[in-house]
Amino acid sequence: MPRRRKRDIIIKGFSKLLKEDKLKIVAELMDNQLEAMELLKSFWHNDNSRQKVFDEFSENTISNFYIPYGVAPNVIVNGRNHLVPLVIEESSVVAAASSSARFWSEHGGFHAEVINELKIGQVHFLWKGEKKKLLAVFDELKQYLRGAASDITANMESRGGGVVDMELIDMTAEIKNYYQIRVTFNTVDSMGANFINSCLEEFAGALQQFCKNQDSFTKEEKECQIIMSILSNYTPECLVTAWVECSYDELDKMDKGLTGQQFAEKFALAVKIAEVDVYRATTHNKGIFNGLDAVAIATGNDFRAIEAAGHTYAAKDGRYRSLSHVELKDGKFKYSLTLPLAMGTVGGLTSLHPLAKHSLEMLGKPSAKELMMIAASLGLANNFAAIRSLVTKGIQIGHMKMHLMNILNHFEATKEEKEKAVLYFVEHKVSFANVSKYMQEIRKN
Amino acid sequence: MPRRRKRDIIIKGFSKLLKEDKLKIVAELMDNQLEAMELLKSFWHNDNSRQKVFDEFSENTISNFYIPYGVAPNVIVNGRNHLVPLVIEESSVVAAASSSARFWSEHGGFHAEVINELKIGQVHFLWKGEKKKLLAVFDELKQYLRGAASDITANMESRGGGVVDMELIDMTAEIKNYYQIRVTFNTVDSMGANFINSCLEEFAGALQQFCKNQDSFTKEEKECQIIMSILSNYTPECLVTAWVECSYDELDKMDKGLTGQQFAEKFALAVKIAEVDVYRATTHNKGIFNGLDAVAIATGNDFRAIEAAGHTYAAKDGRYRSLSHVELKDGKFKYSLTLPLAMGTVGGLTSLHPLAKHSLEMLGKPSAKELMMIAASLGLANNFAAIRSLVTKGIQIGHMKMHLMNILNHFEATKEEKEKAVLYFVEHKVSFANVSKYMQEIRKN
Repeated sequence: MPRRRKRDIIIKGFSKLLKEDKLKIVAELMDNQLEAMELLKSFWHNDNSRQKVFDEFSENTISNFYIPYGVAPNVIVNGRNHLVPLVIEESSVVAAASSSARFWSEHGGFHAEVINELKIGQVHFLWKGEKKKLLAVFDELKQYLRGAASDITANMESRGGGVVDMELIDMTAEIKNYYQIRVTFNTVDSMGANFINSCLEEFAGALQQFCKNQDSFTKEEKECQIIMSILSNYTPECLVTAWVECSYDELDKMDKGLTGQQFAEKFALAVKIAEVDVYRATTHNKGIFNGLDAVAIATGNDFRAIEAAGHTYAAKDGRYRSLSHVELKDGKFKYSLTLPLAMGTVGGLTSLHPLAKHSLEMLGKPSAKELMMIAASLGLANNFAAIRSLVTKGIQIGHMKMHLMNILNHFEATKEEKEKAVLYFVEHKVSFANVSKYMQEIRKN
Repeated sequence: MPRRRKRDIIIKGFSKLLKEDKLKIVAELMDNQLEAMELLKSFWHNDNSRQKVFDEFSENTISNFYIPYGVAPNVIVNGRNHLVPLVIEESSVVAAASSSARFWSEHGGFHAEVINELKIGQVHFLWKGEKKKLLAVFDELKQYLRGAASDITANMESRGGGVVDMELIDMTAEIKNYYQIRVTFNTVDSMGANFINSCLEEFAGALQQFCKNQDSFTKEEKECQIIMSILSNYTPECLVTAWVECSYDELDKMDKGLTGQQFAEKFALAVKIAEVDVYRATTHNKGIFNGLDAVAIATGNDFRAIEAAGHTYAAKDGRYRSLSHVELKDGKFKYSLTLPLAMGTVGGLTSLHPLAKHSLEMLGKPSAKELMMIAASLGLANNFAAIRSLVTKGIQIGHMKMHLMNILNHFEATKEEKEKAVLYFVEHKVSFANVSKYMQEIRKN
């Protein structure tokens, strides 16, 4: 069994191999080696120098994974109309965002506001001593740390950012001798992860030095053990809010069976459910991230950071809840979303990935704050569309209509077969089984 | 200002335009229209029929967004060696996973176990009546609902899955007259979202019919108002655990300054911090999702669903915490990760996306359970690598070494310049400013 043996060999120095050799090792695991090599290569960019940039984003790259790059038109945020780039594989997300944006474009558009844009980093350390002695020198320590990182911060300061504040956090009640220096940063238009981590590592070394130099410290107090220094992806002070509002009667056409007010009330009930039931809350918020992540990826931002911050925020009062909320008052429907959203429009991949760069240009080269507002609006757009479907016709009609093409592609339907199928499934229920049956029928004839 | 005007026009029927016309509208927003069109087209697949499949994944698709498709070798899970496909844009994730996997390949590999694989869906409804009357007919109702969805469930049942159980959940303490039917599903190797949602919508209609037919119900009790019917992405009963373990002395080489036991203790402290501090917990878990999401995307799974479930689970006891845990006992280090992970290996995009299909074949065509175990191991691998770096040399050295190529590409460094720079930055600190200075220097000479 040579194939089985190959699978089990430990591969040494894989990352140092040429791309072609890596490809060969991958292909050896496949039923059809030549076909696999061809497939992987067919996804390379035609322009070698461009492909090289993608190869060097990461390690052991052998191909490019395609995710559809789509756009949602008519996304009006604070009066400005955007064509928003969305990178997403889920079939109904772009359609839902577009339909929601189109509706709101005639009802005042999205409103958005950045509440704050501070980021957090932490130096975690153990220190055995009298806390008041550390507090007594803390102002001096802050100056010392700022000085130590001045090479790193100079550039950021010239752009209007830098280290905003430092705080000593006493965690000794949780873990013996454990303290943090919690640092607040303003990274202006960059996501700022590298900047923050570089500062913190510098602070950590300087903190140790500072303690060593304190004449008033005992021998034990002069020893400060650094555990780790790292940014936090939880950014409750990098907060954005987006909302839509209209009168009940503007919602009259949402559903044949419901008046505008009835629709608003049913919608509000669905959102209320996501505030009291965790099973529902998770899915409710997932629909928000469908839109947020699609904008994040399209603009070269790190969607894992956005997900982590947003979901942590959803659990901030001890119970995981909906991130969006409805207010019904004086005949008005208001729907809002507030969440932490640390995004960047410079640095990272924003200018290195040609399509990320394109996305930002399409959006009119926004500042980080503007991008936060656009992304939050898109998240709200998707969430609104999902709840609207759920409380009226249900989610499956729209979703399966979008998925129909995927199922037809699975059966390698021709253009003619697709056209016929689309007409047929206007009247019939889309499901994998039904499409399969339908394809067998029309191919028999 | 014609450009400004164009931006502000509401576009009607955008989704029905030809792809070329959509492209034109997008290009009109750009400084250089022709270049923008060429750029977007340059990312299309050479094979038209293949490109069409990507276009039809979603709506308003105008190009493909490339994300590096890489592999991590030597990932041993329950004794079997895998080359794991990873789709990720963040520079250090593949390198970290590979290095971690390589270490553990010589120390017993990853161990993993699927604890359960049930998924949840909910029919949310309002019902005004005596609860005991609903409970009295609930067994009969369950049979009725199962019957109503039998067309949909037949296929899934033949594969060993289907509806496992239904429960009546009384939520009237939270919201007046609000109940749920909480349904448990087994969707075998599929993620199952479409299946679950189709069943639930059928149940909702049948529930209304059932109430109407109950002779023992009052007029009011015969009216059951459906709010919505939808799967839950929170899947605490679709749970996987992965772990690694070794003796302290196997960790002796982790850091020059630390014995194996000291390393284990410092590592444990860093993880403990992620259990007591929410700012740290978010970032700690984010590192786990770096690996999980990369496997999810590579295999055609929905990473938003995975993120939502995992983070909700992290907050399950009222405080958002680390998903991974250390145990130090009898000279042994054990590191484990337990989280909900609903993945599929059939349905959705798993066979429609050529590279997702390729990924699954590379992994030996795993069942959903096997994929859950591989992904969890990869998440743990990334998490281990991150904590290891944090508590020893710091995260920035490795990260910036990986990012060096990106910065060099930013300055359009030639092959020769890159080779020189890599040598230079073995000894010098990588930062954007330093690389910029270095490039200016060598280009002056």
